[in-house]
Amino acid sequence: MTAETEPKKLVVLGATGSIGQSTLALARKYPDRFKIIAITANKSHPQLLKDCLEFQPNFVHLMDEKVATENDSRFALHNLKLYSGLNNLLSYLRNCEADIVVAGMVGNIGLLPVFTSLQAGLKVALANKETLVSAGHLVKDLIKKSPGADVIPVDSEHSAIFQCLQAKHQSFKKIILTASGGRFRTSSLKEMNETTVEEALKHPNWAMGAKITIDSSTLMNKGLEVIEARWLFDCEVDLIEVVVHPQSIVHSMVEFEDSSVLAQLGWPDMTIPIHYALTHPKRMPLESLPSLDLVKVGQLSFEAPDFKRFPCLRLAYEASRNSHSFPAALNAANEVAVAAFLDGKIDFSGIPTTIEWCLEHHDTIKNPDVMEVIEVDRISRDLCKQFIERDRRSTH
Amino acid sequence: MTAETEPKKLVVLGATGSIGQSTLALARKYPDRFKIIAITANKSHPQLLKDCLEFQPNFVHLMDEKVATENDSRFALHNLKLYSGLNNLLSYLRNCEADIVVAGMVGNIGLLPVFTSLQAGLKVALANKETLVSAGHLVKDLIKKSPGADVIPVDSEHSAIFQCLQAKHQSFKKIILTASGGRFRTSSLKEMNETTVEEALKHPNWAMGAKITIDSSTLMNKGLEVIEARWLFDCEVDLIEVVVHPQSIVHSMVEFEDSSVLAQLGWPDMTIPIHYALTHPKRMPLESLPSLDLVKVGQLSFEAPDFKRFPCLRLAYEASRNSHSFPAALNAANEVAVAAFLDGKIDFSGIPTTIEWCLEHHDTIKNPDVMEVIEVDRISRDLCKQFIERDRRSTH
Repeated sequence: MTAETEPKKLVVLGATGSIGQSTLALARKYPDRFKIIAITANKSHPQLLKDCLEFQPNFVHLMDEKVATENDSRFALHNLKLYSGLNNLLSYLRNCEADIVVAGMVGNIGLLPVFTSLQAGLKVALANKETLVSAGHLVKDLIKKSPGADVIPVDSEHSAIFQCLQAKHQSFKKIILTASGGRFRTSSLKEMNETTVEEALKHPNWAMGAKITIDSSTLMNKGLEVIEARWLFDCEVDLIEVVVHPQSIVHSMVEFEDSSVLAQLGWPDMTIPIHYALTHPKRMPLESLPSLDLVKVGQLSFEAPDFKRFPCLRLAYEASRNSHSFPAALNAANEVAVAAFLDGKIDFSGIPTTIEWCLEHHDTIKNPDVMEVIEVDRISRDLCKQFIERDRRSTH
Repeated sequence: MTAETEPKKLVVLGATGSIGQSTLALARKYPDRFKIIAITANKSHPQLLKDCLEFQPNFVHLMDEKVATENDSRFALHNLKLYSGLNNLLSYLRNCEADIVVAGMVGNIGLLPVFTSLQAGLKVALANKETLVSAGHLVKDLIKKSPGADVIPVDSEHSAIFQCLQAKHQSFKKIILTASGGRFRTSSLKEMNETTVEEALKHPNWAMGAKITIDSSTLMNKGLEVIEARWLFDCEVDLIEVVVHPQSIVHSMVEFEDSSVLAQLGWPDMTIPIHYALTHPKRMPLESLPSLDLVKVGQLSFEAPDFKRFPCLRLAYEASRNSHSFPAALNAANEVAVAAFLDGKIDFSGIPTTIEWCLEHHDTIKNPDVMEVIEVDRISRDLCKQFIERDRRSTH
């Protein structure tokens, strides 16, 4: 653990993604607060070498071994050693002296790095949904068993809830997770079924990657967040209520046992939640950030989510209630279905249909361990691909 | 101090008022949490004897000695001794074994009982605005000097801010005090000037006494709350921003140094803030209270306050900036002006005009002590009455 006045040492997993880049931007702006000691990515990216040259991390890693080999000499030219492969990453995490591991990678690829960090007693600033969705029970176990291990949420909604829960002696009665409602909040089912990939990729409030934007438009993103929240805040999934709030100003709320509600608000900007995850339990000034101006916003509105037009939200609740390997199966099926939609293989309404079919045909594994979670993921992906191919053959 | 499992012993000052009655209702519902040990009021009231018979307090007190003498035998019939006069109350407070003194009385009459409670090292749940407005600097001094003494806010806005500030290590950058906007939020200046007392007494969201309802319609109530907040949360008055929020669902907000905003929300109901002041730092379940339903509320809107139509808000900021005896003078002038409006002696626009004239003619006393605050109050009232009478003579 670094002294209070020393910058916190950060490992950035998924440094080329949106969370990773925002973390690096904070380290650039506040070198007295944060020092980047490791940068990892899946594949190379024009930004990666620049960032490595700027921050001079002790450890640079690419998950993809082939890409790493291709880039090896380019990095070596700058005296940077490029590590690659899962084992090298896990071995680094086991022995590193990080204060915080920022898990900003997307997808199930985050599972083992996050697990290993927690086993090593590290604090993880978690933006990787899949880890908690697929293996929340294991994450909770690890935090209990490994002294020093902890998970601080980075997602704006979970950060909001976390910020509302900082006081002692405060039991909550309900979590109110806000949802922008996504691209199709006011669309008819017919319009949704006929949407193009391009249309579906336009998000009203947040600039995000393609997969998460589609998840946001199906409300699966919110469903996954409900499952995350269930683990992060250790409650039954039915104590979590989703409320559609199109302006994305109220990032989420908590109702306490005396019926008092606390909410966290801000402009839709990931800077605050990422920074809070890094400075927690303190807050520190973020100078250039404009104050929230509610007079300028004018109105905040709230609607009930429509489970009929957005069956993905229902499926997520059901998977979480079924528990065990169901959330892992849901997450895998969703990744495949969204990829198939983005590839033009299925239409928008095919996303929930595909996932539902996969969940109906899922063979439950009770309390899966890590390897079983990874296996469930693989099986669910295969099942999902088969269903999509079969469906395509029968309609073409 | 009572053990955790024993009910907290409450002294209720102003037991016949709205805060007092709500406190008694909580003690009635949760006898395991709260025990009423003293009930005081200004004058008698049909409810007073009933409440005394129900709660069997050790000490019953009427401020008005004449009324006390008239009611003495009626209480004696039930074996209740009726104390009266300021000195008897202060002497009781100096020696009582209360866990919390609920200061629910209205007006400057609360000043000495609150001071004495704090001097005696008691915790005060403060609903009496005037004490902080007129003598906030002295209250802060007393809390510092008297071990055990503390002030917990009861006003819904200040409770909201207090609830948002419960976590450690969190410095705030701004307080956002919400205002319903009162009766005349959307009225023209002409309509406001022509209003009747009856019209002015209709408040859109909160059922309150006549004086505070008028204060709410002039926004003086919000001005006084700004001054209260300045002392309660120990900041410059210009770090407190008023935002008009007609639905009165967001009870106030705090912007932290990282630009994150926390807000406290709830139905407009004093039960939560009173209960929280009594259970703080814990929260405890309030069973019968319905959950806030934002979908039912639908929209929350926010507007900038109009300092031109509501000069009382400007006057309060100015008095607070001028500091010293100005807030006490403002408060006294406002009480007289509102009474004169309710008596039909001045019209609605006469309220700010009268207060402004009084402040312009106020002789500052630097850092007034308690007796000087009381003297400023008296002088300001006299000045205000003179102005109103002179004005009436010249226009009739």
